[in-house]
Amino acid sequence: MAATGENESLEDLTADNLTQHVINICTRNAPDDRTKELVSGLIQHLHDYVREVRLRTGEWETGWQYLTEVGQFCTPERQEMILLSDVLGVSALVDAINSAQAQSVSATESSVLGPFHNEAHVLENGESIGSEGVIGEPMLIHGTVKATDGTAIEGVTVDVWETNGNGFYDMQDPSRDGPDCRGVFRTDSEGRFYLIGVKSVDYNIPDDGPIGVMLRHLGRNQTRPAHVHFQIKHPAYIDLTTALYSRDSKNVATDPVFGVKKSLIKDFQWSEELPAVAKGYNLESSLQRMNVQNRKGLWVLEHDFVLLRK
Amino acid sequence: MAATGENESLEDLTADNLTQHVINICTRNAPDDRTKELVSGLIQHLHDYVREVRLRTGEWETGWQYLTEVGQFCTPERQEMILLSDVLGVSALVDAINSAQAQSVSATESSVLGPFHNEAHVLENGESIGSEGVIGEPMLIHGTVKATDGTAIEGVTVDVWETNGNGFYDMQDPSRDGPDCRGVFRTDSEGRFYLIGVKSVDYNIPDDGPIGVMLRHLGRNQTRPAHVHFQIKHPAYIDLTTALYSRDSKNVATDPVFGVKKSLIKDFQWSEELPAVAKGYNLESSLQRMNVQNRKGLWVLEHDFVLLRK
Repeated sequence: MAATGENESLEDLTADNLTQHVINICTRNAPDDRTKELVSGLIQHLHDYVREVRLRTGEWETGWQYLTEVGQFCTPERQEMILLSDVLGVSALVDAINSAQAQSVSATESSVLGPFHNEAHVLENGESIGSEGVIGEPMLIHGTVKATDGTAIEGVTVDVWETNGNGFYDMQDPSRDGPDCRGVFRTDSEGRFYLIGVKSVDYNIPDDGPIGVMLRHLGRNQTRPAHVHFQIKHPAYIDLTTALYSRDSKNVATDPVFGVKKSLIKDFQWSEELPAVAKGYNLESSLQRMNVQNRKGLWVLEHDFVLLRK
Repeated sequence: MAATGENESLEDLTADNLTQHVINICTRNAPDDRTKELVSGLIQHLHDYVREVRLRTGEWETGWQYLTEVGQFCTPERQEMILLSDVLGVSALVDAINSAQAQSVSATESSVLGPFHNEAHVLENGESIGSEGVIGEPMLIHGTVKATDGTAIEGVTVDVWETNGNGFYDMQDPSRDGPDCRGVFRTDSEGRFYLIGVKSVDYNIPDDGPIGVMLRHLGRNQTRPAHVHFQIKHPAYIDLTTALYSRDSKNVATDPVFGVKKSLIKDFQWSEELPAVAKGYNLESSLQRMNVQNRKGLWVLEHDFVLLRK
């Protein structure tokens, strides 16, 4: 074969040498070293995958068609691409790598944020996050926020969110307008927060889109274990995004988004009277609103969170 | 930490053991072995990539936002996800792996199909694929189709498509309705095909979407070298999808979609008279239509294709 004249030299591209050529073309003018690292690693792994499984043309077509569908299913209210990342364990891995808490033996572990965090009203300790007539059994959610040395931290923002007893977040439910089953609290001088929520239930992740199709095709569990989300912030401490999972759920070991960690599994306990620690809390109006008197008790979820100093 | 009761045993998921757990969850009920292989390889490489580059949370967000945009840019006329596969060299690698021709020393090599193949009229040898008044300089495209033993093959379907002299395919150009610069021919008893097209020009791949943003960010060449596409079929032979590239293009070594192979680079030659081999062709009406008399010559692209028997 004759030389290609004034052109740059051209190697014949084969399954063996194509990858290095593509990496060279993609990175030689990249704006910075981090971009080069991200792009070359991505191409290397994409190509290695295609070579290892000897990806067939029809399988490649299925792949780009599927990714197109996932993108097209997204709306401002529905992020199907994050859900894809979630069910492939990528979100949990990114969390594990970037979590400051994972480096500490004493700090509370982090968990995935999920797609349902949203703006919520700032409430007083003791208030209920459920709207009037909310579906679900009442649950006292309480505990403290402390530093790794055991010092209580006052003025910590504790953002709490969960589904109602039907397993839907407010934004998934057209019959609820405005924030429901979510609220932002501040710890008191003893580092305490306390509120009335609803007993968490297991619920299916959204399954009416391409991710649902994939999970069914793979015969995978689509149900998340019952849990309550927390995002905990204080200017002097590292932000903590986490969740507490119910030990009685059958889905803790097969969470479809891989958010569960052992230290985050808690007993959600039924109590026929307010626990001793709660006696001092001002819960009257919230319990009345949740009609607890007629239920002869309530659920209790207690946890003491530990933050890392910045 | 207490046992998780009746649940399946739950390992604490860390950056080190998460991947095997996700693969297990994703594959244990998969419908067949090939699905298991594809899914486990995908998860392994995705996770290895995230771990190797220690993907930051903000970079992960950029990633899913970008893939969402690529999916949402797609329309029935514009497949941006294939273009992403193209510019990352994945399409060329899938072609290299699946190409029967790559296994043979004598068969014509394959090249990427690209997103611009479409239905075209069946034409007689000697006809022009350019519409009346088509933009571009006329080019005789001719040659033979033979078997690896040198035997001419009659009745081979030769599907040819290219841009006009402005660098646009018919479907990209609202001023052209119906097929233009594309046509389907059949080889004669000597295995010959011959037609009048237009001199190929270098052109930019579509750059008004997310792929254009990426190529500019990486400082990459966006221009494909001038080429003519061919899809060649006969019931007794393996289909061949390929293209012939112009040696005088400055972009053969930096093709943004990595389609060029040395054996597919050809001299597109200017001729002041019809080449000897073309004397026997019936080209009068086509040349008249292209107004060749006033141009004092025409371009010539000649290639003999070699097919593999099934």
